[in-house]
Amino acid sequence: MSKPKVIIIGGGFGGLNAAISLRKADIDILVIDKTNHHVFQPLLYQVASAALSPANIASPIREILRHQKNTSVMMANIVSIDKDKRTVIAQNGDHFDYHYLIIAVGSAHAYFGHPEWEAFAPSLKTLQDAIKIREHVLMAFEMAERCEDNAQAAKFLRFVIIGGGPTGVEMAGAVAEIAKKSMFKNFRKIKPEQSEIYLIEGQSHILPTYPERLTLIAKNDLQKMGVNVINDKLVTDVNSNGVKVGDIFLETANIIWAAGNQASPLLETLNIPLDRQGRAILGKDLSIPGYPEVFVIGDAACAMDQQGKMLPGIAPVAIQEGRYVARLIKEQVPFEKRRPFRYFDKGMMATIGKAKAVAVFGKLQFSGYFAWMTWCFVHILYLISFRNRAIVMLQWCFWYMTGKRNVRLITRSIENFFYRE
Amino acid sequence: MSKPKVIIIGGGFGGLNAAISLRKADIDILVIDKTNHHVFQPLLYQVASAALSPANIASPIREILRHQKNTSVMMANIVSIDKDKRTVIAQNGDHFDYHYLIIAVGSAHAYFGHPEWEAFAPSLKTLQDAIKIREHVLMAFEMAERCEDNAQAAKFLRFVIIGGGPTGVEMAGAVAEIAKKSMFKNFRKIKPEQSEIYLIEGQSHILPTYPERLTLIAKNDLQKMGVNVINDKLVTDVNSNGVKVGDIFLETANIIWAAGNQASPLLETLNIPLDRQGRAILGKDLSIPGYPEVFVIGDAACAMDQQGKMLPGIAPVAIQEGRYVARLIKEQVPFEKRRPFRYFDKGMMATIGKAKAVAVFGKLQFSGYFAWMTWCFVHILYLISFRNRAIVMLQWCFWYMTGKRNVRLITRSIENFFYRE
Repeated sequence: MSKPKVIIIGGGFGGLNAAISLRKADIDILVIDKTNHHVFQPLLYQVASAALSPANIASPIREILRHQKNTSVMMANIVSIDKDKRTVIAQNGDHFDYHYLIIAVGSAHAYFGHPEWEAFAPSLKTLQDAIKIREHVLMAFEMAERCEDNAQAAKFLRFVIIGGGPTGVEMAGAVAEIAKKSMFKNFRKIKPEQSEIYLIEGQSHILPTYPERLTLIAKNDLQKMGVNVINDKLVTDVNSNGVKVGDIFLETANIIWAAGNQASPLLETLNIPLDRQGRAILGKDLSIPGYPEVFVIGDAACAMDQQGKMLPGIAPVAIQEGRYVARLIKEQVPFEKRRPFRYFDKGMMATIGKAKAVAVFGKLQFSGYFAWMTWCFVHILYLISFRNRAIVMLQWCFWYMTGKRNVRLITRSIENFFYRE
Repeated sequence: MSKPKVIIIGGGFGGLNAAISLRKADIDILVIDKTNHHVFQPLLYQVASAALSPANIASPIREILRHQKNTSVMMANIVSIDKDKRTVIAQNGDHFDYHYLIIAVGSAHAYFGHPEWEAFAPSLKTLQDAIKIREHVLMAFEMAERCEDNAQAAKFLRFVIIGGGPTGVEMAGAVAEIAKKSMFKNFRKIKPEQSEIYLIEGQSHILPTYPERLTLIAKNDLQKMGVNVINDKLVTDVNSNGVKVGDIFLETANIIWAAGNQASPLLETLNIPLDRQGRAILGKDLSIPGYPEVFVIGDAACAMDQQGKMLPGIAPVAIQEGRYVARLIKEQVPFEKRRPFRYFDKGMMATIGKAKAVAVFGKLQFSGYFAWMTWCFVHILYLISFRNRAIVMLQWCFWYMTGKRNVRLITRSIENFFYRE
């Protein structure tokens, strides 16, 4: 009998950890990803805000797994899954058969039923998104400098970030630092430090999954950095002129979307029940109903903790899920003997700006310089390669000392840049 | 009377050095560039070959000039020059008037009268070009791994570099290192080290501007690295299947163009005589005939040395020309009193691979490890910011120790990647 074939779709935290956990198993593993690299998503906003280069937070998946002899890596865009024939199908028609399938395809941002908003409000999920947002933010200052007068320039110097979760908070803080510090003395007609930055959150607090004390600290920190935080207001329109929030219209050329999640459309091809965010509803062993050989992990999975609370879409959840299903496969545990997945809560952290962060570890809550140092340390530690750790550390040292961001590159032309994307 | 206005078009070596040399002059300077950054072009091939990130060799022009109070920087695409009205016109219709104009717009690669070849053979002049070539080279290996059999894969594992000047030699060496070293153990079906790499030069020697002894050393080094060097053969066709060189047809999906130069089409709007490569034919003071207030420098200029020999399109020439015209402007030297531009030959260097380079300084010629160390040292030294120097040095240390390239990123999709660009 030939070895069991395991296909893992997606080389993010979940998929990669599943593959690594299976390194000694007597099986054939195929990791399939749309891109050729694993991205360290928690630092994606640093690429979008010109602090790090894309390569600093990404490693080729096949380089990471090069010594793992039971594993192949394939770059392909899987467009459908046939769970009865046990095969996955790529965009070019190629089929790949499996005995076990791990779906770790992540999620994209959702536009609350308004997909047309995306053209004016890019979101941040991939390296390509990050580069696009970086160029947009930098270009806004260039356009403002080219304007005839301040009234014209105002639209380019107003930044609106929609969504007050960790990504939105981090982006708002980073844009504030760019405007108020990194651009110092760079312009002659405009004053970047007079930029207006808005962070909009529909719920009553930013960072809604954090304890109230910390969300208030985060809000206060952002306000001190010059960010206008708007709570409890819903966005009702997004267009080429700006954003409508409640009764007010914010005229702006710069909108960043960091709200709402929607799992990958690939899950729809499974023909199983999905939750409101398009995530697969799973058994306690993270397999889909009736198909114990098909697992869904990470942001694509609707999984619960021991108390029946929905698990958040963060790296530690995806990593633990990946390791859990890897063990079930390695030991070939039959469905009825599988113990439910249990999440070990490692806490959560969000950074607001230089020397400003909030963190929760179980009952411990902290903020400020110490939380920020912990954040830096943990994020360096979890980066994949030693080389990237060294380079990111070096860049952060420079950034800490000078406030300057090193990746202020625009590769597109300024002519017709806006309202065409 | 208001201050004289100086416009500099182009923020490359020539334009930037002209601006910096004018920092203490009592004038108004406007630097206009299509992009927002100065690129250190001699290291562009390292971005194209995944060794460095784009930001490592680029700095925002306005950041470089931030303390220079007499200087503004504008991002704009200048499409024509009206030398009689003394104005330059941007793509969006904006006009900028000048008393003095320095044209430092560089050059692009020329396709020997076959512009249709460009679609299949990208060239390397901008950061965007470098990223495109990097993704293409990396994607070729991914495509090969996806092929059914070796015959199909061969086309993706054959690389043809056209043009044996420094860029072509450096790219050929770099592609050989990628295939033979950086990809080690990364693939399961293909063997990247079996890639075929061709370097094609129409003249009888590669690096034709170098002494014969050094060109033979360079050729020998390349051959040892597994590069097939073809001399004395002209490329007669380039299409989606490959390259025709003399009588042979090399079937390949990977063609890189590093031959022929053509100055920017902006020069045509001057209505003055241009040389065969589209460069402005100038007086000995680098001004255009009849318009002593309009200078052309760098790759856009057809300038001669003291012996009447054409100056090469390299950084030291552009830098010295920039400083020369800056002095003429600062001191407002009338046309008839201008001493001719004199080039001080600083020599030239080209790198072939790790620990392999050739260099000429006056009558000194050397090669091998020492030439390579000199090359590394000089290139680090001339990088614009201290920060980039530190980061490039760190990356080169890793590269030297491991042979690994750190920027192996593909952000585009593999589906329909080839033959569509």
